[in-house]
Amino acid sequence: MGKVVPRKEGFKKLTGRAQYVDDITFPGMLHGATIRSPGARGRIKNISFGGPIPWDEFVVVTAKDIPGENHVALILYDQPFLADKVFNHPEEPVALIAHHDKYLVEEARKHVRIEFESLPPVFTIADSINKKEIIWENDNIFKSYLVQKGDVDQVWNKAHKIIEGDYFTGAQEQLYIENNGMIAVANAEEGVTIWGSMQCPYYIQKALQPLFKISKEKIRIIQTETGGGFGGKEEYPSILAGHAALLAWKSGKPVKIVYSRSEDMVATTKRHPSWTKHKTAVDRDGKLLAMEIDFSIDGGAYATLSSVVLSRGTIHSAGPYFCENVRIKSRAVATSSPPHGAFRGFGAPQSIFALERHMDKIAKELDLSPEEFRRRNLLKKGQTTATSQLIKEEVDFEGLMAKAFKLTDYKKKFKKFPLQNKKSHLKKGIGFATFMHGAGFTGSGEKHLASVAGVQADEKGIVHILSASTEIGQGTNTIFSQVAAQALGLPLEMIEVDIPDTRFVPDSGPTVASRTCMIVGQLIETAALGLKQTLIQSGLLKPKYTSKEWAKACRDYLKKFGVLKSYSQYKQPQDIEWNDEKYQGDAYATYAWAVYVAEVTVDTLTFETRVDDFVAVQEVGKVVHPVLAAGQIEGGVAQAIGYALYENVVWKDGRMINNQMTNYIMPTSMDVPDIRVYFEEENRRYGPQGAKGIGELPMDGPAPAILNAIEHATGVAMNSIPLVPEILFENLRKNHEAHNV
Amino acid sequence: MGKVVPRKEGFKKLTGRAQYVDDITFPGMLHGATIRSPGARGRIKNISFGGPIPWDEFVVVTAKDIPGENHVALILYDQPFLADKVFNHPEEPVALIAHHDKYLVEEARKHVRIEFESLPPVFTIADSINKKEIIWENDNIFKSYLVQKGDVDQVWNKAHKIIEGDYFTGAQEQLYIENNGMIAVANAEEGVTIWGSMQCPYYIQKALQPLFKISKEKIRIIQTETGGGFGGKEEYPSILAGHAALLAWKSGKPVKIVYSRSEDMVATTKRHPSWTKHKTAVDRDGKLLAMEIDFSIDGGAYATLSSVVLSRGTIHSAGPYFCENVRIKSRAVATSSPPHGAFRGFGAPQSIFALERHMDKIAKELDLSPEEFRRRNLLKKGQTTATSQLIKEEVDFEGLMAKAFKLTDYKKKFKKFPLQNKKSHLKKGIGFATFMHGAGFTGSGEKHLASVAGVQADEKGIVHILSASTEIGQGTNTIFSQVAAQALGLPLEMIEVDIPDTRFVPDSGPTVASRTCMIVGQLIETAALGLKQTLIQSGLLKPKYTSKEWAKACRDYLKKFGVLKSYSQYKQPQDIEWNDEKYQGDAYATYAWAVYVAEVTVDTLTFETRVDDFVAVQEVGKVVHPVLAAGQIEGGVAQAIGYALYENVVWKDGRMINNQMTNYIMPTSMDVPDIRVYFEEENRRYGPQGAKGIGELPMDGPAPAILNAIEHATGVAMNSIPLVPEILFENLRKNHEAHNV
Repeated sequence: MGKVVPRKEGFKKLTGRAQYVDDITFPGMLHGATIRSPGARGRIKNISFGGPIPWDEFVVVTAKDIPGENHVALILYDQPFLADKVFNHPEEPVALIAHHDKYLVEEARKHVRIEFESLPPVFTIADSINKKEIIWENDNIFKSYLVQKGDVDQVWNKAHKIIEGDYFTGAQEQLYIENNGMIAVANAEEGVTIWGSMQCPYYIQKALQPLFKISKEKIRIIQTETGGGFGGKEEYPSILAGHAALLAWKSGKPVKIVYSRSEDMVATTKRHPSWTKHKTAVDRDGKLLAMEIDFSIDGGAYATLSSVVLSRGTIHSAGPYFCENVRIKSRAVATSSPPHGAFRGFGAPQSIFALERHMDKIAKELDLSPEEFRRRNLLKKGQTTATSQLIKEEVDFEGLMAKAFKLTDYKKKFKKFPLQNKKSHLKKGIGFATFMHGAGFTGSGEKHLASVAGVQADEKGIVHILSASTEIGQGTNTIFSQVAAQALGLPLEMIEVDIPDTRFVPDSGPTVASRTCMIVGQLIETAALGLKQTLIQSGLLKPKYTSKEWAKACRDYLKKFGVLKSYSQYKQPQDIEWNDEKYQGDAYATYAWAVYVAEVTVDTLTFETRVDDFVAVQEVGKVVHPVLAAGQIEGGVAQAIGYALYENVVWKDGRMINNQMTNYIMPTSMDVPDIRVYFEEENRRYGPQGAKGIGELPMDGPAPAILNAIEHATGVAMNSIPLVPEILFENLRKNHEAHNV
Repeated sequence: MGKVVPRKEGFKKLTGRAQYVDDITFPGMLHGATIRSPGARGRIKNISFGGPIPWDEFVVVTAKDIPGENHVALILYDQPFLADKVFNHPEEPVALIAHHDKYLVEEARKHVRIEFESLPPVFTIADSINKKEIIWENDNIFKSYLVQKGDVDQVWNKAHKIIEGDYFTGAQEQLYIENNGMIAVANAEEGVTIWGSMQCPYYIQKALQPLFKISKEKIRIIQTETGGGFGGKEEYPSILAGHAALLAWKSGKPVKIVYSRSEDMVATTKRHPSWTKHKTAVDRDGKLLAMEIDFSIDGGAYATLSSVVLSRGTIHSAGPYFCENVRIKSRAVATSSPPHGAFRGFGAPQSIFALERHMDKIAKELDLSPEEFRRRNLLKKGQTTATSQLIKEEVDFEGLMAKAFKLTDYKKKFKKFPLQNKKSHLKKGIGFATFMHGAGFTGSGEKHLASVAGVQADEKGIVHILSASTEIGQGTNTIFSQVAAQALGLPLEMIEVDIPDTRFVPDSGPTVASRTCMIVGQLIETAALGLKQTLIQSGLLKPKYTSKEWAKACRDYLKKFGVLKSYSQYKQPQDIEWNDEKYQGDAYATYAWAVYVAEVTVDTLTFETRVDDFVAVQEVGKVVHPVLAAGQIEGGVAQAIGYALYENVVWKDGRMINNQMTNYIMPTSMDVPDIRVYFEEENRRYGPQGAKGIGELPMDGPAPAILNAIEHATGVAMNSIPLVPEILFENLRKNHEAHNV
């Protein structure tokens, strides 16, 4: 651990040996496609299959073909696999078709017509909150939270200043490199087997059980090599797997559905748009007295994971600042667009963007530098967060800032740029954000999951890791191998990570929430140590051993006892307490802490912004694999640069209309500077050898740091992303008019 | 029936929708390869796995990994799936390897070394008969036959003339367009499932049963789209399926083995080389008094199907000529080359080549034209064949000859060519052959097979044909559909031929021996009529009905009774009698009769022969599909032109050394004239509406017709094929020397 070793699956990927779902072709396999709702909200009158298509050769599935229950089992059971009488968003699955000829399937789907009677839709958070129409249950509210610490109301009239602000973030497309795809083999006799691109095999198993009304044991889910996830393959694969399985069940043939990029963009989940209102009281010393935060996210038409995205966004909304009085109200609301879903950061990038912009606003009002204002308010060991979680570890924001500022020459540039900007339409600015990100599931989430992971040795002494955690490009296989190799004192080549296949691996929880390394990694460490213990106690292995002795001991043990396995199950540490009712307590076992600095140039002729330099300094506990860890930060920062400046989902009547990579612009390597990544390894209480989660962290800081830098460059505070050139222009124009009034 | 309709699977093939075995890729699939013996015959000392290959990643199977019995269950059980202590021919399978990376597999197989001690081999029929070495049981004889009719020995001294001759035919490569390939999924729990290119699913099931020692029900064989067979996918697929299944069984993963063209050529079965001796007594009127035939074929190292190839070759060796006294002795012998096997014609092309060349020799000796000599001896209704089979149908050889000669202007050219040849090195000749070919299995073969075929109707009224007969390019699916459509009075679109899958279709026997249309076609006709009868008797269908009424009746029947199926089993016609001991009686239910005329140009500077014109006139009973039938004849003639003139397997120490299509020369469309095909439909006693077999017939006549034409062109009788330019040159040179002595 701590060393740079080759990726476990790297060779396989580089040599084309890795098998993605679309590389698999079963005998007699059909290709499936989804017929989707043609409007935002409506009552289905009729579905007709026309055109020059041999429809009698097709398998067609509609809601009435579903053998079990027509809902996706996730949190709430409000979303159907196939819309039946009504549809609630554009591109909602209504019917499925399949045929041997995938080109004919593509042609055929154009000739299915859904006649419908329109129902009134809702397209904005505000309209949803204001109940312009009731489109979900009684009040359009999927979930709401109230977090209270101290009493904000007794503070307002004592405040030196009260500063308010509104902040907005847009949707963001996942753009994993491999689109969603699934193959199903399904029949009443053998049950359902699914191969596909996914993050959470056991989620799919759970979702398909009521759909087919068969026992869990008859549902087998197998991950194929997966080209990226980011959260976008957390919940949606259950729907796609269900669709493929329904077609397979009806036709008696294997069915493959692989989405095109356009379909994946228009139909699957994106990051939740958000609207945050802040009201903050500060004293004369620039210290936070009270924070009132109102955080709303747009969940789209069905609940999906919005309640937990909201939870994480809510907890992170007051950030790494100490304040005695905090009230956070939050809600996830229904709109008539496809459901928004899990996406790297899971609500935190939204609420942290708002918070950091608001902190900059307060600093400005107080005539303090952003740096100085933060210095006065950032959390320290012994203080409490908004959920009253006592911080028991050293939080060295001073050190992180010092490092980040030194690396970027921040202080000098902070003074110099405003002067030099006067002479040019190319305005330079430097800005930063200070933030934290919790690792693992929120609150009592991990306790309820009670994940299990295991290791198993074969007769060659090879140790197989048994876990449902998926490799989705982030390095799971490599890190797990490092953890097991270190625990057992074996070379990396003697560790194999078995394919996540629900028939063979235990449920180690979903591969989400920056939990894989810290939570599951630790289970693997414990299981590996248990395996070693078993061998030593059997007398077949001495406490000190070579690889050869290990292999011989395994062989001998297997001859004697038949199987050599060890499992470990998550147990919540004693010192973690959480109150789910009051939303108070230890929201996470631990946090990663970070200071990110961005340097930008804003062109006030073209209104384009370019990130010239980016430094990411963070404290993440033990760094298991420096290159993979840096890769996570680099990738996250690049994705967050897209989130801040480029990636603009254009909506029309609840439907994404720029669902191509030609007009949905993501940053390429030409748009991203060399991202400079630095790790501190201070706090190592949790995770294998003290490794915390790092996957989501880099998604949080870049957008506020960049907008802070843009404010520095232009003098104008902008509070909405994506800040594409036309919006930047609009902001500057308004500010100009404001100043000229 | 009798109409030209589109091929049932034509659209699927043309549009790339047809799924061949190599189009299938299972999750986690390995690619297998075969390690083959490096010499002709030897005792294995050691197998070593060297080179820069990660052998620990490979699955390796040798004979000792076989869970059941190490022999291919076919007729005799002498051939192992994997050579154990000894190998008996070059390129014999010794070990199997598999890995995820098919390119690595190709590299790895070069680094396996088999050390061995040589054992003395045998390479020719003569050496085998003379027991130069005993290489198979006690005498090198796989099988021998003795056919006696009358008493030849009492004739010799009464004869006007006794004419003797020796005739030789070479091996021929199959060259189906799709090489052999199989995929296996196999484990003790679920049994063995095979997908692949094949002719005989039930043969594979039979072969795998003792190999794995599991019940027949646990072995499932499924034909994938098959790119040609010609008999070459009759027995070898059992071996390949066994290999794939052994690797799958050991690794627990699906395994695909697809041969390259070179491997397919060097390792799989070819046409048996043959040596035939004729001794014939004729009277003063040019009538046959006695025929003594000694027919030997080279079976290669294992028995495989040589006994039945020999049987058919033996029965056809006296051809369509009437003679009171016939003695045929025949034998299939062992040599140290890969086993020769089933190939279109199945022994008959060899013995008919010898017979026709010999008939030409006799005619010459008697100073009769080939035409006149045949006219005096060809079989007529009421006469008997060599097996004393009474011919009960009209045999209109006069009519067939008249038609063929008229179409080719034979008589005029027969006179004209010798005169005009004197002026040019381009010598033109015209020649012909008269022959017959039996349809179906020989003797009591069909009785023992007792094949079953069926039809099943679904709720749309679609009639599914259930048969193990395979579509291998010859038109099975189309012809079966025509037969069923005609029997039921339904449009062709309402007939579907289900995939041959041993789980769902009955054993309708192998797809060989020109039996599919005549034997299985008739079973389908009977089954279809039975299905109709069932519906009419149920009262749900009137005797006269439309397609819609049919569909409704099926739907109503299925609602009431659940399933609508009808099977038919082969019963030998009352008037067929066969004595297996004496090899006397009705060798076949019926025969196809033919006269083929070839016109050639022999270039006496380059010694190349070109077939300028070819007319094939035959009587085959009912022609079910004129275009497919003509296609069978055209393809067969082209293949037989290759057999006669181009296709030369070059052997070295029992191994084919020109196993590439660059130096094994097959005729292309540039080497083959427009083949003119004519059918007579006289005798229609057997088969659906009187259709006989036609698949093998066109393989018999072209070689002797072409050599007859070459003799006409050059004046030299040549008695060995392939008559490649160097052999032709050698023959002409010897003849020249002989004349100059």
